[in-house]
Amino acid sequence: MRALAVRAFVGGEPVPALSPLDRGLAYGDGLFETMRLHAGQPVWWEAHVARLAAGCRRLGLPMPDAGWLRGQLQALCAQAPQAGVARLTLTRGEGDRGYAPPEQPAPGMVLSLHPSPPAPPADGLNLRWCHTRLALQPALAGLKHLNRLEQVLARREWNDPDVHEGLMLDGDGLVVCATAANLFAYVDGEWLTPPVDRCGVAGVCRGWLLAAGLAREARLRPETVEAAAALFLCNAVRGILPVRRLESRDWSAHPAVWAVRERLGREVPAFLERGPV
Amino acid sequence: MRALAVRAFVGGEPVPALSPLDRGLAYGDGLFETMRLHAGQPVWWEAHVARLAAGCRRLGLPMPDAGWLRGQLQALCAQAPQAGVARLTLTRGEGDRGYAPPEQPAPGMVLSLHPSPPAPPADGLNLRWCHTRLALQPALAGLKHLNRLEQVLARREWNDPDVHEGLMLDGDGLVVCATAANLFAYVDGEWLTPPVDRCGVAGVCRGWLLAAGLAREARLRPETVEAAAALFLCNAVRGILPVRRLESRDWSAHPAVWAVRERLGREVPAFLERGPV
Repeated sequence: MRALAVRAFVGGEPVPALSPLDRGLAYGDGLFETMRLHAGQPVWWEAHVARLAAGCRRLGLPMPDAGWLRGQLQALCAQAPQAGVARLTLTRGEGDRGYAPPEQPAPGMVLSLHPSPPAPPADGLNLRWCHTRLALQPALAGLKHLNRLEQVLARREWNDPDVHEGLMLDGDGLVVCATAANLFAYVDGEWLTPPVDRCGVAGVCRGWLLAAGLAREARLRPETVEAAAALFLCNAVRGILPVRRLESRDWSAHPAVWAVRERLGREVPAFLERGPV
Repeated sequence: MRALAVRAFVGGEPVPALSPLDRGLAYGDGLFETMRLHAGQPVWWEAHVARLAAGCRRLGLPMPDAGWLRGQLQALCAQAPQAGVARLTLTRGEGDRGYAPPEQPAPGMVLSLHPSPPAPPADGLNLRWCHTRLALQPALAGLKHLNRLEQVLARREWNDPDVHEGLMLDGDGLVVCATAANLFAYVDGEWLTPPVDRCGVAGVCRGWLLAAGLAREARLRPETVEAAAALFLCNAVRGILPVRRLESRDWSAHPAVWAVRERLGREVPAFLERGPV
């Protein structure tokens, strides 16, 4: 992973690297957050911290102090002011061999800074349907945990650079999301996005759109998505990304997409600078 | 994790530690094997290598040369002759940020040696039912991959040291396995074990039992397990472990368990030394 700066911690103390026996590596026993950086600051910081804390509660991990986290991130950002993306990985640290978590974990943490992703294509994203499905697992649904092999397998299904993302169905054949973004479909004059109570990630940009009253949750069938008046993907790093094509279906620019992008840019200035796609 | 010896590699070269940006940590993008050591040699080596190679094919990982692997393991075992367990972790190594795998991965690998687990209780294991279920994911079923949060959550459900293992159901309510072992139930005069085509791990001891013609695969309901004439768990480290209790149901020693343990000890001498439970 091209990183502009990296720092690792165990139990809050800086270390050269995590242990090769860290449970994050051994079992994917941990969580992560991927944040947009704007003017050296993480965008939607409170939302990222809230999701991390919720994940810690679900997994029984100790949540680091948010002020301390922010301080470490700021210090790292000072080393790489050109960075556009920060990743925070939190693990349960080392334990005895076996699945039983240690009673007094010394959590592992990695902070890394990365360049901004390439700008999206000016006329919107080209999507495909993935064959790999997301298993129904309510105990982990919504969390941004480290068990991401389903997404890796789905992303391995294509290497055509003209295909920008893949949409994934769940085990019941309902639409959930893209491999690294949430999906919104404009149906009968409103924006709909699949719930993430059985699988999928509760994305931070998705959460902003729902909290702003710009969309609501609804279970979506593939044919409803294909028949939608407009689609967009979103995530916390890239904001709202209009969709131009899904397999053989094409969409032209839709005012409902402009409306949500304009609102996002107005309320979260970090997303103003790209300008309309 | 208490380890007697550890060695890490990237692209086949020894390194002090894996990168904090290794995809094994970032996404659980990798596989592992846990092996019993006997007289300084890994037991069922060919079966472990075969499962690892099958996992590499499914995930699109390059499989390391088995002879090289064996040599590295031998060298490490020479440093800790008292070790009873070896773990091999293989990852896709570093890549760019995002799920797309690197085109030319330099795989990460960790070898670690550990003490033997404590001897099982002389009168058999005491089991519980876990609430956490295994999601149905045929794309990953059978593999010993690094996405193990379901097992971690299940193992977190109890900390009573008198409960030795928990049995897990799949999303459809069928019995699959224990958190770290396969399950066999003696029903109508034959040993049955759940298939691992939708979830669960194709355990190496389980594979030996099936290949020896001592058992066959069958989908099992919880009530069938509870009504079975005998149960055992098994894995590659601990061999065959008779079950004495599951929740409120008790079993006394059964000759069918003795028969398979005796056969295992005869054909795989590493399992002789413990003597009958």
